[in-house]
Amino acid sequence: MPILNKDMQVCISLSGRPSNLGTRFHNYLYDELGLNFMYKAFTTDDLEGAIRGMRALGFRGCSVSMPFKEAVIPLVDVMEESAAAIESVNTIVNDGGRLSASNTDYEAVAQLIAEHGVDPAARVLVRGSGGMAKAVVAAFRGAGFGDLTVLARNPEAGPALAAKYGYAWTPDELAPEFDVIVNVTPIGMQGADAAALAFSPAFVERASVVFDVVAFPAETPLIAAARASGTRVITGAEVIALQAARQFERYTGVALTRDQVDRASAFSRAE
Amino acid sequence: MPILNKDMQVCISLSGRPSNLGTRFHNYLYDELGLNFMYKAFTTDDLEGAIRGMRALGFRGCSVSMPFKEAVIPLVDVMEESAAAIESVNTIVNDGGRLSASNTDYEAVAQLIAEHGVDPAARVLVRGSGGMAKAVVAAFRGAGFGDLTVLARNPEAGPALAAKYGYAWTPDELAPEFDVIVNVTPIGMQGADAAALAFSPAFVERASVVFDVVAFPAETPLIAAARASGTRVITGAEVIALQAARQFERYTGVALTRDQVDRASAFSRAE
Repeated sequence: MPILNKDMQVCISLSGRPSNLGTRFHNYLYDELGLNFMYKAFTTDDLEGAIRGMRALGFRGCSVSMPFKEAVIPLVDVMEESAAAIESVNTIVNDGGRLSASNTDYEAVAQLIAEHGVDPAARVLVRGSGGMAKAVVAAFRGAGFGDLTVLARNPEAGPALAAKYGYAWTPDELAPEFDVIVNVTPIGMQGADAAALAFSPAFVERASVVFDVVAFPAETPLIAAARASGTRVITGAEVIALQAARQFERYTGVALTRDQVDRASAFSRAE
Repeated sequence: MPILNKDMQVCISLSGRPSNLGTRFHNYLYDELGLNFMYKAFTTDDLEGAIRGMRALGFRGCSVSMPFKEAVIPLVDVMEESAAAIESVNTIVNDGGRLSASNTDYEAVAQLIAEHGVDPAARVLVRGSGGMAKAVVAAFRGAGFGDLTVLARNPEAGPALAAKYGYAWTPDELAPEFDVIVNVTPIGMQGADAAALAFSPAFVERASVVFDVVAFPAETPLIAAARASGTRVITGAEVIALQAARQFERYTGVALTRDQVDRASAFSRAE
């Protein structure tokens, strides 16, 4: 039987290469919770037209992925703190025609740092300088961490990211003297770099927290190595589930339990 | 389980007051035929933005209802004959970014005139002068009918409609001398005029074909009176089902059987 009806609220996603993750995560929970919502992934070659369409058709929400996270900024009405802090949007909520932009990646990383009880006095090493690295570094700054080094070969993005939040930058791997090591590069992601380790074993052994933002697979070589040494881990699977949950809560106004998030996340990844 | 996925093709409708009819008709058949499509009704206060959104998000189709049928004309790329003939659009198909507009109301009326074997030599009386009356009068003209009178009180729309297709106009009911009588006013529609008869009994008794474009209820007082006198009837329910079927075929490329149309139509009206 068709589940669609005219009164359903519509959420969409915009990305260069849509996946089924968001569509499955959100619709799974709409169904389970009996919410009259639907969620559908799109790509576009006319971002301005897509956002104008969102306004014209009254879509309730829009999840924004690469390569639109910065380009969408001039098209919204309100930049919330999470999006303004990193000049990057991944969530737009339409309140009666007013579009508010936020960044739930930033919020998710900040929440995970807090939930895992990471000590703000820790020495942190973040590898990467892309959009997600910005969310991670800003979240550590927001949580009051004073000692953080950005490790990135890119001679422009690396120092720019570090300087923006008052941290150090290095293009070369340092001595393994960090309490928290964070991978925000594709190293270990399924595909070409699947077998590679984002940090050498000495770093993993020295660290008390290993955080890998790579979400596919959930168990990257780095996470596996950390678990093997009994080190606390924060995974990309946690980040992606939590940021989706916060989008869901913004779109629907319904708070999710951890169990609901875990089941929707497992469903979204099961394809 | 959620039925939505990222690859689904999207069709929408735009109208001032969306109903669930189209949403139920189309989704019922997508489901039955296993087509990876979805259909959702919308309204808008920014028609240009909605059509730009259709292009930006790659919607496959858009059904257009009042009050957008004429305003949408400058926003499409191609006007097919059925839409051009009555300067009114109820269907837009997006072929890789090129929007083609047609009018399946016109097509449905023309098809029903043919299927019911109405004689082009018949004397026809059409009551009404709105957008749907235009589709009806144009369809009779297209089918080669030479003797048609438009009965409409509106002193501007009535004569304009008649003149456009080379027919007569009258503001007052004539003698009951017509073979085919067609109601294209809201008389007999569920609501205020539900009990009223669009033509007096003498007209019904004289006619060999009674055509009522009112679709709700399927059995209007006019249709009931015609059936009681054993007169051939063409109903608004037939028009609405057939025009939806032709939209469906344009959007999906799949031809429907009469049985499929009847079941989807019954489902769409069952709510």
